[in-house]
Amino acid sequence: MRMVDIIEKKRNGGELTEEEIRFFIEGYTEGTIPDYQVSALMMAVYFKGMSEKETSTLTQAMVDSGDTIDLSSIEGMKIDKHSTGGVGDKISFIVGPLVASVGVPVAKMSGRGLGHTGGTIDKLESIPGFHVEMTKEQFVENVNKHKLAVAGQTGNLAPADKKLYALRDVTATVDSIPLIAGSIMSKKLASGADGIVLDVKTGSGAFMKSLEDAQALAETMVTIGNRLGRRTTAVISDMDQPLGFEVGNANEIKEAVEVLQGKNVADLRELSLELGTHMAVTAGIFENDQEARKALEESIESGAAFQALKTFVDAQGGDASVLDDMTKLPEAAFDVEVPALESGYVSAIDAAAVGTAAMYLGAGRATKDDTIDHGVGITLKKKTGDYVEKGEALVVLHSQSKDADDSRAKITEAYSISPEKPESRPLIHKVIK
Amino acid sequence: MRMVDIIEKKRNGGELTEEEIRFFIEGYTEGTIPDYQVSALMMAVYFKGMSEKETSTLTQAMVDSGDTIDLSSIEGMKIDKHSTGGVGDKISFIVGPLVASVGVPVAKMSGRGLGHTGGTIDKLESIPGFHVEMTKEQFVENVNKHKLAVAGQTGNLAPADKKLYALRDVTATVDSIPLIAGSIMSKKLASGADGIVLDVKTGSGAFMKSLEDAQALAETMVTIGNRLGRRTTAVISDMDQPLGFEVGNANEIKEAVEVLQGKNVADLRELSLELGTHMAVTAGIFENDQEARKALEESIESGAAFQALKTFVDAQGGDASVLDDMTKLPEAAFDVEVPALESGYVSAIDAAAVGTAAMYLGAGRATKDDTIDHGVGITLKKKTGDYVEKGEALVVLHSQSKDADDSRAKITEAYSISPEKPESRPLIHKVIK
Repeated sequence: MRMVDIIEKKRNGGELTEEEIRFFIEGYTEGTIPDYQVSALMMAVYFKGMSEKETSTLTQAMVDSGDTIDLSSIEGMKIDKHSTGGVGDKISFIVGPLVASVGVPVAKMSGRGLGHTGGTIDKLESIPGFHVEMTKEQFVENVNKHKLAVAGQTGNLAPADKKLYALRDVTATVDSIPLIAGSIMSKKLASGADGIVLDVKTGSGAFMKSLEDAQALAETMVTIGNRLGRRTTAVISDMDQPLGFEVGNANEIKEAVEVLQGKNVADLRELSLELGTHMAVTAGIFENDQEARKALEESIESGAAFQALKTFVDAQGGDASVLDDMTKLPEAAFDVEVPALESGYVSAIDAAAVGTAAMYLGAGRATKDDTIDHGVGITLKKKTGDYVEKGEALVVLHSQSKDADDSRAKITEAYSISPEKPESRPLIHKVIK
Repeated sequence: MRMVDIIEKKRNGGELTEEEIRFFIEGYTEGTIPDYQVSALMMAVYFKGMSEKETSTLTQAMVDSGDTIDLSSIEGMKIDKHSTGGVGDKISFIVGPLVASVGVPVAKMSGRGLGHTGGTIDKLESIPGFHVEMTKEQFVENVNKHKLAVAGQTGNLAPADKKLYALRDVTATVDSIPLIAGSIMSKKLASGADGIVLDVKTGSGAFMKSLEDAQALAETMVTIGNRLGRRTTAVISDMDQPLGFEVGNANEIKEAVEVLQGKNVADLRELSLELGTHMAVTAGIFENDQEARKALEESIESGAAFQALKTFVDAQGGDASVLDDMTKLPEAAFDVEVPALESGYVSAIDAAAVGTAAMYLGAGRATKDDTIDHGVGITLKKKTGDYVEKGEALVVLHSQSKDADDSRAKITEAYSISPEKPESRPLIHKVIK
């Protein structure tokens, strides 16, 4: 078997066999197939696509290229939630304790990574003492006992995906739905959950700007998951503006806590309940969506959901008392208002630009060696559809410097003001099972 | 400027600017742009093509990546002929002396290369004493005096093309008309001729199997040549079976000599006159095709064309007397007939398979280190449209071994015999200026 023939076959629109896909993934992982042949194949895939069968085979081959996490010693059906990423997305901190409180086991592997704000673990480390260092046995015990634990990613999960993604990033072959779907799903499958609920974002702040692309991606991922034996559901949710009002690290934790305490931050509460419902039903805890949703709402009202967060934080060394008194969370030195330059309705907020503004403040990492400042961040005072007077604050920057000029400029750029009130977009666009 | 943006632009169907094309060709030649980005770009070009302007710019950038030969000290308008390659193609040995005999200066750089038979220089070295070692001054003097000289390729011509071609070969991106055209033309332009006549082959033995593809390639090359200031003409000629009756090295020289001596080997004489006519008119020696053709025919009848070959061979150290007594040319030890397995008309001869059979005999190089046996080769006894009796010879193999089993098998495979006489194909399909 020769790689050049595999490239030519795909270039001509052929369907690659399992043998061919495994040949190239294994060869690439081992280094016997060079980058330049793989990038040519990736470009051919960009143009010619991959069938459902090819995409699933590719995903499985990437899973098999490295370690897989065995969660079988955890009782029940373990459910993982994955978001394709957005700005102000603190849903994991809400939905994790929420579903744990009704009995869904969530064994989460998380990363730090680069981005406008920190990753899941970075955000949790805003809580004094919280850490993810534990043995595999402790991790399993914590999930069995508290239904929720978060560990750092260990092992060499889907190394083929890691290598392939780095190559695609510099060869303009990222934007291919089968390749994106395979990349996400290979990591999820290697992480060992029995069921997966995907939060696929669409809009200006999402990787998939159009609903059509988001839907295609969601369908492909659900197909892969189900073909490879994991119950998979995708919710297509709106990311045309940041989720909630807080963008950063400690302030995102704070907002998540408020939702768990019952505060109705409309989009956060609604999306958490939607995703939580699918997780709980996938886990087999409830018969149908209605029952699950009712139980989750009750868990918020009763305080059980908030208690689940505190128990989880405590179990991983965190000072849970700060969740009752959130003034103890890290805070930045200055609050800097960014005023509207004209009166009118907020017609759009470029979520990606808000993310960049937060990164400028120090909330995220541009390179691996950057450190994160948990106290900085942005509080949105106006969201899409709100009326604002000229001079009124659009956002408050939580900054370590008095001026934060580059962030201010980015925010001004991010907000569009218009005389007419914009049409509102739905939060949940579609659910695909 | 970033290579990934250039790839993305082409992937999206954009037209690359001169700056972008030069950035990538220069970076690739210098090694600052890696193979894996270039192969992705080549695949994007495969799918999205290149405009005339892009293709010409690419060609010029590849020319500028290395040395160019300065032929300005040679008087007159220097004309180069290039064939896209076929089996039994000894046209250069006929047309070179033929046009030289009417005053067209031909300063040819040739190579050896890999293939089913040797390259131009290998074939000429069948003549005892013939060599291509000479100083630049001798080369120029020879062309000025005799209108014809052949030198080995010197200098580092179009190194970008060399590197790019090697990459395309292993990434299934060879079959792209703008890339093929740019590759051929960059070498021709770097070689310094003022006018170029291209012999673009089509049919089973050609790189371009279909007339449509051959025409597209021819048009693209003519456009490049003319845009870059060289008068360029392309003749699309048939390569659905070998040209003439001889395939090898010494035996090809012999057949070329016979045509120069006036023998009417139909396809060879006709194609030589056609290409010679365009070369002579391009050089400005004649007003129109009719005049040129008449002069070339007269040159064959008068013996001037044959004399031009002898003068050229003599000037480069060859024993020109062998051309008068061709029994002195190298010969193989055995003549092995390959008989027809059934009676009928020869309906097709797979030229590429005949080439492979010749290579098995030792007429060509499969790898750089192989040596060529000038005496071996194949004489076709039957060509397409001929009737053959079962047991009658299709070809005679000139072999150094008595059996030559693999060549025999290849020949049997190459010939198709059918009860009906096949329709004949034209030799000259089209001329593009």
